[in-house]
Amino acid sequence: MTQLNVAALQLAFTDDIDENIANVSALVREAASEGAKVVLPPELFEGLYFCRTEDEALFANARPVETHPAVLAMRKLAAELRVHIPTSFFEADGPHHYNSLAMIDDRGEVMGVYRKSHIPDGPGYSEKFYFRPGNSGFKTWQTPGATLGVGICWDQWYPETARSLMLMGAEILLFPTAIGSEPYDEELDTSRMWRRAMIGHAASNVVPVVAANRTGDECGQTFYGHSFICNEWGDILAEFGATETGVLTATLDLDAARRHRAGFGFFRDRRPELYRRLVEDI
Amino acid sequence: MTQLNVAALQLAFTDDIDENIANVSALVREAASEGAKVVLPPELFEGLYFCRTEDEALFANARPVETHPAVLAMRKLAAELRVHIPTSFFEADGPHHYNSLAMIDDRGEVMGVYRKSHIPDGPGYSEKFYFRPGNSGFKTWQTPGATLGVGICWDQWYPETARSLMLMGAEILLFPTAIGSEPYDEELDTSRMWRRAMIGHAASNVVPVVAANRTGDECGQTFYGHSFICNEWGDILAEFGATETGVLTATLDLDAARRHRAGFGFFRDRRPELYRRLVEDI
Repeated sequence: MTQLNVAALQLAFTDDIDENIANVSALVREAASEGAKVVLPPELFEGLYFCRTEDEALFANARPVETHPAVLAMRKLAAELRVHIPTSFFEADGPHHYNSLAMIDDRGEVMGVYRKSHIPDGPGYSEKFYFRPGNSGFKTWQTPGATLGVGICWDQWYPETARSLMLMGAEILLFPTAIGSEPYDEELDTSRMWRRAMIGHAASNVVPVVAANRTGDECGQTFYGHSFICNEWGDILAEFGATETGVLTATLDLDAARRHRAGFGFFRDRRPELYRRLVEDI
Repeated sequence: MTQLNVAALQLAFTDDIDENIANVSALVREAASEGAKVVLPPELFEGLYFCRTEDEALFANARPVETHPAVLAMRKLAAELRVHIPTSFFEADGPHHYNSLAMIDDRGEVMGVYRKSHIPDGPGYSEKFYFRPGNSGFKTWQTPGATLGVGICWDQWYPETARSLMLMGAEILLFPTAIGSEPYDEELDTSRMWRRAMIGHAASNVVPVVAANRTGDECGQTFYGHSFICNEWGDILAEFGATETGVLTATLDLDAARRHRAGFGFFRDRRPELYRRLVEDI
């Protein structure tokens, strides 16, 4: 039986990058000590969620994957603990800036970089100011435990992300996130829709999902946590509420998931010739 | 404010087509008396769910849309009550047989026929024996109250169905269904995954969803009901459990749904050029 122990981290961040990396590192150690082989920190954990405002000075925090401090720290830790760490970071590449993820393997090597495909924009989430829409396309990563598929935050709302990753062989979908309150509508709590969209991906694709979100108040914006791990039915295996911090772990039975996925037959019965509109500019 | 009252019917069926049509008609009347303008009966309500076995004698029950007794009865009723009735029926067309739906408008006219795109096959659900995969493509229907998108049962698990209908202008997604216990796995209750997939469509597309399922025991197969109506957030507005029968109604605020859909920006931020795999034969 192919079982894999996975972990999601939930915590709050400050404007002190060293402190943030130290806090994430402590939780990665805790997850590894509990047997996790894949440990998912939240999106852009190097600092505060800076897309709250549009400030050109902040582009200076972007770095190439080779020199980004969060990536370098996670590479060292991954090699030491023998875990995979999908590491979200603010990437600079020549004149371009991306919301990116380095898949770091259990030897501390960067397997490759995925650049966030779907970029949000709205009050409190001015990502279109900072990030060029990703040009990497979706990526999956073959690891000893499972083929991993990763989307970054806004990607997680898109059925196209989940389905594309599945068609590329993903056996687990992972989503690092930074999402919270909506400044334009203080009544609106999107946390339940956020979970429903991803649990919908689990059910429609018969695949386990891992989501890691930040928590805490940052300059009036409250990040709502609710990180979770669910199985291929969408049943929650481990979850946090809005303010808890720490490590979620769960053991996924990937053989059972594969068997259930085949038995359901969703992929057998797809009709790609009828899906033309999905790839048209409409 | 554009509000629309919609209804879903949940009931059990027998092998008596006249009795089934009479029972559905009584519930359509009840729904109309409560103000519903669109009334959704379950899938293939003319009889027992015959795909339990593979029996060539049953093809004789298929009829063209012009003469199918369920369609004729609903046309008469729709004209009398001034309601739209998406009517599922077993369609014969020359040598072909389809699992189809006639969209009947509030004058009793057939606006067109949609043929189920995704055909399941498994113990208790031998639909591939009976139904040619639909060749109509997805369809939406402009009505005075809203543009309606309809998928039939197995279609409802596919994010591609929901997204395609949305890109064709759908403002409500409706799913007539016949789903219940799994003879190959008596422990397995798929009702929660069934809801999760559709509520996921609601959240990912910011659109209300209406699902109507049959209930009752048929030759050892137990149909699990759980019909529901949810809003564009995926919040349940009305629902049945496994054995209740009757009419669910809810009033949908389509202006609010349209505003929320625009505000979320999911459609603004799609990347069709990255979705190529969705339409490839992989």
